[in-house]
Amino acid sequence: MKALWLENNQISLRNIPQPIKPNEALIKIRRAGICSTDLELVKGYYPFTGILGHEFVGEVVSAPEQSLIGQRVVGEINVACGKCTACFSGRSSHCEVRTVLGITDRNGVFAEYTTLPLENLHRIPDSVPDEIALFTEPLAAALEIQEQVQIKPTDRVLLIGAGRLGQLIAQTLALTSCDLYVLARHEYQQKMLGARGISSITQEEIQPRQWDIVVDATGSPDGISLARKAVRPRGTLVMKSTYKGNITINLSSIVVDEITVVGSRCGPFEPALRLLEKRVVDPTVLISAQYKLKDALKAFEHAAQPGILKVQIEL
Amino acid sequence: MKALWLENNQISLRNIPQPIKPNEALIKIRRAGICSTDLELVKGYYPFTGILGHEFVGEVVSAPEQSLIGQRVVGEINVACGKCTACFSGRSSHCEVRTVLGITDRNGVFAEYTTLPLENLHRIPDSVPDEIALFTEPLAAALEIQEQVQIKPTDRVLLIGAGRLGQLIAQTLALTSCDLYVLARHEYQQKMLGARGISSITQEEIQPRQWDIVVDATGSPDGISLARKAVRPRGTLVMKSTYKGNITINLSSIVVDEITVVGSRCGPFEPALRLLEKRVVDPTVLISAQYKLKDALKAFEHAAQPGILKVQIEL
Repeated sequence: MKALWLENNQISLRNIPQPIKPNEALIKIRRAGICSTDLELVKGYYPFTGILGHEFVGEVVSAPEQSLIGQRVVGEINVACGKCTACFSGRSSHCEVRTVLGITDRNGVFAEYTTLPLENLHRIPDSVPDEIALFTEPLAAALEIQEQVQIKPTDRVLLIGAGRLGQLIAQTLALTSCDLYVLARHEYQQKMLGARGISSITQEEIQPRQWDIVVDATGSPDGISLARKAVRPRGTLVMKSTYKGNITINLSSIVVDEITVVGSRCGPFEPALRLLEKRVVDPTVLISAQYKLKDALKAFEHAAQPGILKVQIEL
Repeated sequence: MKALWLENNQISLRNIPQPIKPNEALIKIRRAGICSTDLELVKGYYPFTGILGHEFVGEVVSAPEQSLIGQRVVGEINVACGKCTACFSGRSSHCEVRTVLGITDRNGVFAEYTTLPLENLHRIPDSVPDEIALFTEPLAAALEIQEQVQIKPTDRVLLIGAGRLGQLIAQTLALTSCDLYVLARHEYQQKMLGARGISSITQEEIQPRQWDIVVDATGSPDGISLARKAVRPRGTLVMKSTYKGNITINLSSIVVDEITVVGSRCGPFEPALRLLEKRVVDPTVLISAQYKLKDALKAFEHAAQPGILKVQIEL
């Protein structure tokens, strides 16, 4: 089968044998999305050799469970062992020996086929088209904030960053009816937020030490530094992106101000699918372009350009 | 009056005018305690000029409220404005224009007299002697952990550090019936813990990524680094000491492991007094020595020696 292979910071289209894993579902990929993590893997920020990609919509073509065959599915990206303390404690996405679809020790989804264990799969409601269902994984990641932090309707919440993930976080945070402002650097980002009735704020307007909850979705040292300045004493700072390398922080000030810092990663798929089915969240506006798999290299070039939100690959 | 004055990293005994603040209670100091923060102020880690000291037991000699006169009291160290957002939101210890007894813009308690607003004072139950009541402030700081973080009976909790504050934290954490282990470097610290039925652990025995909650009470880069290694994914790391300078941290790993980091400082006095009154917590063993105010310089030398827990100054 055709697949987009990553090796030594180079991506190329290759012919790879179709995967066979009798205990897992074989899934024919219908559509896949390029995420920031994919771009960072190509840059070499994390070591990975194999088929890239982890956001997908597919159709189950064979599986140990008959009822799944022919179903349209999305899939959770962490494949857990099911036997360790983390797995038994309901934290299987933190399984210490997990593989991660297209990220760690497991081939991904920029390919004609992939495989995943049955427990990773979620049926897509018929009313949700492929191009929307493809946002299930990042939307679940956005919802993880509310899984970890109670956001009250009276909270003043600042979101820093309004890119691919930031726009989805803005939409899910807005559902809490909190007093939400988003620092969006670009006018097109502000317009997208405005169209959903979400307020933008400029960096100059951000009052220091006044925000109950601050979410950094930039993954940049500037973003985390601004977030630290904005959060109020006893407030909560949510880190929603990974950061390159080590970052220097004044821990004493976090103690004195009694700040809570929360690292936040993958989230729950079912609530994300519910929001998409009910059209409470609408990611359509985030689709910047779509390509065929044979043009995947062009798709990656496109996705890496500034101001580009979601680039999808159709099979 | 006689007072221990700090100026340019030098402490000296001086004669200072007795304070007069008509809106505050005038308190005759009966006993005061030397805390790590005092030693750090002398080393110049924070800028402060004035009378040192913030742990005290005193007797109210004059006050705008008659019923307080003659009462034995302890006092909360943060003096708030009562008018700002933090004060109105029930976070007066985070008032942005607060003064702090013996630490920021307010003379402290290594002196014959001090003053504090009435709302900062707490009556000491008659059954609690001065030398025990003097632990109210650090014991309240220990209890702040439970104010901020839910500690479940089933949680595996690691406390790193068993010095002055660490011993009190060990006793209050033990009350939660969690599965508690304490990394105590010195044999005398392990014996103190053992006498309370609290288990010690060596650094080699600490399993990495296995602890639900880890509390660092060392304030050292080594302590925070060990705490980071010990805490499990989705676990909580409590920072209970201030740290010198900036510390480099890998924020990505905190995101990937979805760690919650909580800075923790001053705590509630009333529960601390309840614990002391009921003798549920017993700090007696922590008293290393006591001195008269005229020998305060010797007391500071003594307190700065390794292995010394609490040095008290009696007036």
